[in-house]
Amino acid sequence: MLAQKKDYFFKNPFYPEKGGIIQKPVIAYEEYGNPKGETVLITHGGLQNQHAAGKYSEKEVLAGTWDDLIGDRKAIDTLKYRVIAVNSPGSMFGSSGPLSINPDTGKNYGPDFPTLTMADMARFFKQFLDETGVQKLSLMAGPSMGSLQTLLFAALYPGFAEKIMAVATSGRMTPGGIAFHRFMKEIIQNDPEFNNGWYQTDKPLYSLKVIHEIARIYYTHETGIKKYFWDTVPEGQNAQFERMDKIRNYLVSGIDEYLTGRDPNSYIRLTDAIDSYSLGYHAESYEKGVERIQCPVLLVNISSDSEFPPYWAYEVADILNKKNPGQAVVRIIESDWGHIGCIKETKKIAEHLKNWM
Amino acid sequence: MLAQKKDYFFKNPFYPEKGGIIQKPVIAYEEYGNPKGETVLITHGGLQNQHAAGKYSEKEVLAGTWDDLIGDRKAIDTLKYRVIAVNSPGSMFGSSGPLSINPDTGKNYGPDFPTLTMADMARFFKQFLDETGVQKLSLMAGPSMGSLQTLLFAALYPGFAEKIMAVATSGRMTPGGIAFHRFMKEIIQNDPEFNNGWYQTDKPLYSLKVIHEIARIYYTHETGIKKYFWDTVPEGQNAQFERMDKIRNYLVSGIDEYLTGRDPNSYIRLTDAIDSYSLGYHAESYEKGVERIQCPVLLVNISSDSEFPPYWAYEVADILNKKNPGQAVVRIIESDWGHIGCIKETKKIAEHLKNWM
Repeated sequence: MLAQKKDYFFKNPFYPEKGGIIQKPVIAYEEYGNPKGETVLITHGGLQNQHAAGKYSEKEVLAGTWDDLIGDRKAIDTLKYRVIAVNSPGSMFGSSGPLSINPDTGKNYGPDFPTLTMADMARFFKQFLDETGVQKLSLMAGPSMGSLQTLLFAALYPGFAEKIMAVATSGRMTPGGIAFHRFMKEIIQNDPEFNNGWYQTDKPLYSLKVIHEIARIYYTHETGIKKYFWDTVPEGQNAQFERMDKIRNYLVSGIDEYLTGRDPNSYIRLTDAIDSYSLGYHAESYEKGVERIQCPVLLVNISSDSEFPPYWAYEVADILNKKNPGQAVVRIIESDWGHIGCIKETKKIAEHLKNWM
Repeated sequence: MLAQKKDYFFKNPFYPEKGGIIQKPVIAYEEYGNPKGETVLITHGGLQNQHAAGKYSEKEVLAGTWDDLIGDRKAIDTLKYRVIAVNSPGSMFGSSGPLSINPDTGKNYGPDFPTLTMADMARFFKQFLDETGVQKLSLMAGPSMGSLQTLLFAALYPGFAEKIMAVATSGRMTPGGIAFHRFMKEIIQNDPEFNNGWYQTDKPLYSLKVIHEIARIYYTHETGIKKYFWDTVPEGQNAQFERMDKIRNYLVSGIDEYLTGRDPNSYIRLTDAIDSYSLGYHAESYEKGVERIQCPVLLVNISSDSEFPPYWAYEVADILNKKNPGQAVVRIIESDWGHIGCIKETKKIAEHLKNWM
């Protein structure tokens, strides 16, 4: 399947709730499937891009992150549905964010890009759907940050999505994740090249390299590192050294390429928005906030996830099912991949989604 | 119980296996208990010091890390045993290490301090025991790095220790730990103030702060952060912000004090030694190396430990018990504390040790 990069330029400005204005908002997205079908909206992980399925050209090696889920006759069937995979506002992959041009200055917004909350992200997607005439979603789904956007969207616009799937998820940002984000921001802001956010955007800051090295440990799990970079070397006299090399290489392999185009100001805006996340947003209590979700919900968490351990999915499901038995279903994928299981265990996610649909 | 800081100056030089020489080795240690009793040797975690039990003065708030295990009528009974808690070579807490004076220059060794292996650490302890006339150990025990030293000591000097306890442990350095050490060394060596190891030793490098912030995530577990910095704030309108503050504070609270006296060159020497660890050292195979251990072994791992997950303890026990059924006992402590459970879950460790003894 071929994926197309598209942009939609908003008719109206966007007003983030903490102040400021995005005069000329743009949302980058990909579209696949049946243009006449009902719409499915796909969101993405915080530091990922919106490339969810297909390839941009036949030459590409890798398809989008959820290619196992999205395609003809797959769990999200592109023969049937029109599938739109949107890039989040605040991101560095095409939607309005710190790398966008500030019409007031003619230069990048940089650190002047408005602070966003998770609710802003949901509102941004809603404005896009409204302006383009989408009146309901057959399904909304996403991994990690995308799952939080999905759940909050369903709480703020009950009935708009007929069903939702949240993968590697929680009803509020987790303590472990908040701690890791605090660390990320701290080292970005202390990077000698950071310059209060007015760094040179054409070369990646060293702090991003540090973040992604440690992310390859934190967002995975020891069992995964063992399985893929240790157990693959047969026992023997030199095994220990070969293994050590493989493990050390894992942390840095392809990192320069990976960092190309990545923007530290975006990391700050995205993680601030994620940290603000709670389904209790603008509700009487957390429980009441969760209960605003009216549609069936599939929550899929990864057994070894250190950022979104399974109990966070159960917290949401328990509140929903107490009020409306059977509304929420939790599936835990037994996996060595830790948090990134949400984009690695795609065959298993697809299976759960298919069975649940 | 009052703890005393002591030093022993070796009669003979120490020759690390990778080359170099420590002309005038010193080992810092503490001693408690019955001076006429049989000797128990206690080792410590890699980035910890040797303060295992008691207080240095009545005024101190906190006792040593294993105070629940060591004392009169405790699992390691100081009425009965002479207990020695040694500081590791390569460390920054008193034994020979990069902060020691290099007799050739009259200044700190700094990065010129010889590279050490885990076997060197075991040999260093053995030389200390030999020179001071200790001919056997009733027990040798330690957490984390100390547990690796203990196991390798038992493999290299079979029969010298009558029994050993290894807490948060493995028979070879774990992939997750190697990855984390790689990260630590990378950011220390890229610290703008590092200066190839010739930094100013009177102020802590920023990179150490970064390491200890992320260590407070990596060496713990989300469940622990949740339990202590989240669940302790009652639900309510401001709960989310209070929780976020508590979590962020957790990463940095007391960090400047904590970093006082900590030495980046020591971090490099210690983690290199830990990374070199395998019970297969100088053996025909890993299994044969493990089988050199002749005494009863208690292995205690922490359920939520990301660096030394429980399966590493079972790997050692399975090899020993296959040859000599019942020689090794594994106890897994169910805990939210992750790796630092080895110094937090001391009451449970003490109980396992007592039952096993």
